[in-house]
Amino acid sequence: MREDDEVSAVGGATREERRRDPSRVLALTDGVFAIIITLLVLDLRVPQKDSLNGQSLATVLAQQWPLYLAYVLSFLQVGVVWANHHTMFHYIRRSDHVLLVCNLMLLLCAALLPFTTAIFAEYGLAGRSDIQLAAFIYSAALGAAGIFFNLLWQHALRARLVYPNADPDRLHALTWHWRLVPVFYAIAFLLALHSPYLSVCMYVALLFYYALPGPFVVLWMTGRQSRRRGRLSAARH
Amino acid sequence: MREDDEVSAVGGATREERRRDPSRVLALTDGVFAIIITLLVLDLRVPQKDSLNGQSLATVLAQQWPLYLAYVLSFLQVGVVWANHHTMFHYIRRSDHVLLVCNLMLLLCAALLPFTTAIFAEYGLAGRSDIQLAAFIYSAALGAAGIFFNLLWQHALRARLVYPNADPDRLHALTWHWRLVPVFYAIAFLLALHSPYLSVCMYVALLFYYALPGPFVVLWMTGRQSRRRGRLSAARH
Amino acid sequence: MREDDEVSAVGGATREERRRDPSRVLALTDGVFAIIITLLVLDLRVPQKDSLNGQSLATVLAQQWPLYLAYVLSFLQVGVVWANHHTMFHYIRRSDHVLLVCNLMLLLCAALLPFTTAIFAEYGLAGRSDIQLAAFIYSAALGAAGIFFNLLWQHALRARLVYPNADPDRLHALTWHWRLVPVFYAIAFLLALHSPYLSVCMYVALLFYYALPGPFVVLWMTGRQSRRRGRLSAARH
Amino acid sequence: MREDDEVSAVGGATREERRRDPSRVLALTDGVFAIIITLLVLDLRVPQKDSLNGQSLATVLAQQWPLYLAYVLSFLQVGVVWANHHTMFHYIRRSDHVLLVCNLMLLLCAALLPFTTAIFAEYGLAGRSDIQLAAFIYSAALGAAGIFFNLLWQHALRARLVYPNADPDRLHALTWHWRLVPVFYAIAFLLALHSPYLSVCMYVALLFYYALPGPFVVLWMTGRQSRRRGRLSAARH
Repeated sequence: MREDDEVSAVGGATREERRRDPSRVLALTDGVFAIIITLLVLDLRVPQKDSLNGQSLATVLAQQWPLYLAYVLSFLQVGVVWANHHTMFHYIRRSDHVLLVCNLMLLLCAALLPFTTAIFAEYGLAGRSDIQLAAFIYSAALGAAGIFFNLLWQHALRARLVYPNADPDRLHALTWHWRLVPVFYAIAFLLALHSPYLSVCMYVALLFYYALPGPFVVLWMTGRQSRRRGRLSAARH
Repeated sequence: MREDDEVSAVGGATREERRRDPSRVLALTDGVFAIIITLLVLDLRVPQKDSLNGQSLATVLAQQWPLYLAYVLSFLQVGVVWANHHTMFHYIRRSDHVLLVCNLMLLLCAALLPFTTAIFAEYGLAGRSDIQLAAFIYSAALGAAGIFFNLLWQHALRARLVYPNADPDRLHALTWHWRLVPVFYAIAFLLALHSPYLSVCMYVALLFYYALPGPFVVLWMTGRQSRRRGRLSAARH
Repeated sequence: MREDDEVSAVGGATREERRRDPSRVLALTDGVFAIIITLLVLDLRVPQKDSLNGQSLATVLAQQWPLYLAYVLSFLQVGVVWANHHTMFHYIRRSDHVLLVCNLMLLLCAALLPFTTAIFAEYGLAGRSDIQLAAFIYSAALGAAGIFFNLLWQHALRARLVYPNADPDRLHALTWHWRLVPVFYAIAFLLALHSPYLSVCMYVALLFYYALPGPFVVLWMTGRQSRRRGRLSAARH
Repeated sequence: MREDDEVSAVGGATREERRRDPSRVLALTDGVFAIIITLLVLDLRVPQKDSLNGQSLATVLAQQWPLYLAYVLSFLQVGVVWANHHTMFHYIRRSDHVLLVCNLMLLLCAALLPFTTAIFAEYGLAGRSDIQLAAFIYSAALGAAGIFFNLLWQHALRARLVYPNADPDRLHALTWHWRLVPVFYAIAFLLALHSPYLSVCMYVALLFYYALPGPFVVLWMTGRQSRRRGRLSAARH
């Protein structure tokens, strides 16, 4: 928090006064993500000595494999949401009240991840209707998180909270990169109607796509467009 | 933490020595709020496969609706307390020992929110006397938090811990904005004697009122006063 | 973390290289204290609807009073340890490996506080020998924390990790202020042999004494000494 | 986060754009470590008054000694991993996407420590095959953490994310210091085939070796080499 900024903000106009350094918003967010990501390990249960019922420890631990898979996938999922939040706030230099509220709503949805994954871990091998329900809940929570993620970004762009000299092409590419998140999860939601397994495949695909450093697909398409535009304008001259 | 400040504070007069950068106070506070807000999700229980008793997963999850409502409302309640703390420390540039103690007492009360909400989630559909007790406890905890919130702010103003060029009108408006918090919760406490449901309605109204960016009502009244004063002084000339 | 410092430290002499900005040590410490302080609220149990056994909710909640007392006292105890850590690091501007290790050992002891308090909450109304054991454990944990607190401070002074222009009188007063902590808890430990209740009274007294802003008693004694010395030197001339 | 850096990074070339201040990576990491380290205390169970079965509290608490040993050793183990992370980021001044992913994978493995230690605490006095399994799991988790630790450091060196004027000899020594971590844990894994007790001895030895401030052994060997080289070049002249 740079003091001069603060002072000028506090002593300045009313609208400017409500614009602040986002450092505390990030502190709360990092704290929440650190806790979500660490709470996941609490679901890995060490079997009590008395409850082995003559089975070996190795057998009992091996039977818990859905728990391990759920741990790794949720850890990565929370990590991917955090990494995208990190990318977004790389471009945001001021926060205001609307941004703060959008961020809280995003955290509210993201904090559901341990719950939605636990349903999968418990019912992932159960009947088809239970997996379908688990897929509905999972898609809904991440889709809602995606919507607030977009509202946050749209607001930051509209209220000029981003760095003034950020590359507009890149901001545009990121806008499209993130705008697709709720669309993808809406598709995953509808896919679950037909087959929850397809829906799960889509989660894994999305997990890895959004783990990539940035808007690759969008940049590739924009790049192709701008190259085409470049060729057209070169042909005209 | 800017080094020159620290050095001058450390080598300076005894009174000045006890005045510090509030960054660690904020780090502890943000940590506590991040944990309170994330612990709430632990109350969302995934029903065990064995305990379904022939009911479908959907039915069991749907029956848990008070848990979901409690999750959303507590998340927002903690978020609103944090957002107001964020607003307050936007104006505070130094901390001292009294501020530190007031802040700890505020955290002590705010950390009770998961407990007070859990009582509501468990007894919200029980008999009238139980809801009344839940409302008493909820009002008392938030009212006490409000009192320490005010003591903190009063002390910061009196001990000149705020930024010296902050707009005095705005500081005054914020003082009145926050001074009403314990009054409102005292009213909610007394309302619960008559009808705990009215009390609950008041919590929701207060939740949304204090989620607004700042002292709207107070500013509107002050604005009206200053406009009237303006008109009076214009009429005199 | 100021970059020039870092760069010079990294490119500098080997001994200087191991001296660092203490910001990450503080981040870990504040995180640990925030979690300790917030975990305490998990011990406040909401009685399940089914387990009331015909008693009213109010009765059951009222019977839990040792839990509430334990919550308030542990919260204050953790807060007081944190506040003293805050005071100490107000004077420390560099960290090295020994400081880091002392700080970890201090955290190891401080993180036991929820456990040692929970023993009191469970056995505080039990037989005399159980309370005596609880008092032994409580004194030992806080005494050990006090020893590492002192080792940390002694090392910081000896290795010149404090701000160079800090008032030496104040540093000396703080040294004595903190040196008494393990002594006091050793006395509390021995008192528990005679009467655990006296021991408990001593904890409360120490809690409030170390909640005060600084080395009041030590400063008052030093002040008297320096006034006497002043008078003596005035008489000589 | 220094604003000019950010601005230039944001407005700069695409490759530079993806390089960032590592402060948020550290905030998440410190949060995760603070939670891992504090969650360990939750395993220290206060025996319920009703479950004493006529035994004295002292006897029951004394019988829990593997829990206390596990608490102290895990606390130190987590602390040592954190201290080495702290040392590494002392030299890193920029982060990029690969670094962020390696760090997340490192956290994923480190967050398993409470789980792997709990297996030891539960089965440490059980049959030989159970201790062997516990040793396999423990070695595997810490070995995997070591691999990601090395990938992170290798990437930081290759992508020039370290401070440009850092001492190359020291960077090289650290590289060897950390490169041995997965090798040591692979040996501990294989040792467990022969005798799990030897494996446990190796953990304790490694714990204390990596608790030392830096690459002592490596520096001593490098020092001997450079002294020999010095003597050789002196002999030549």
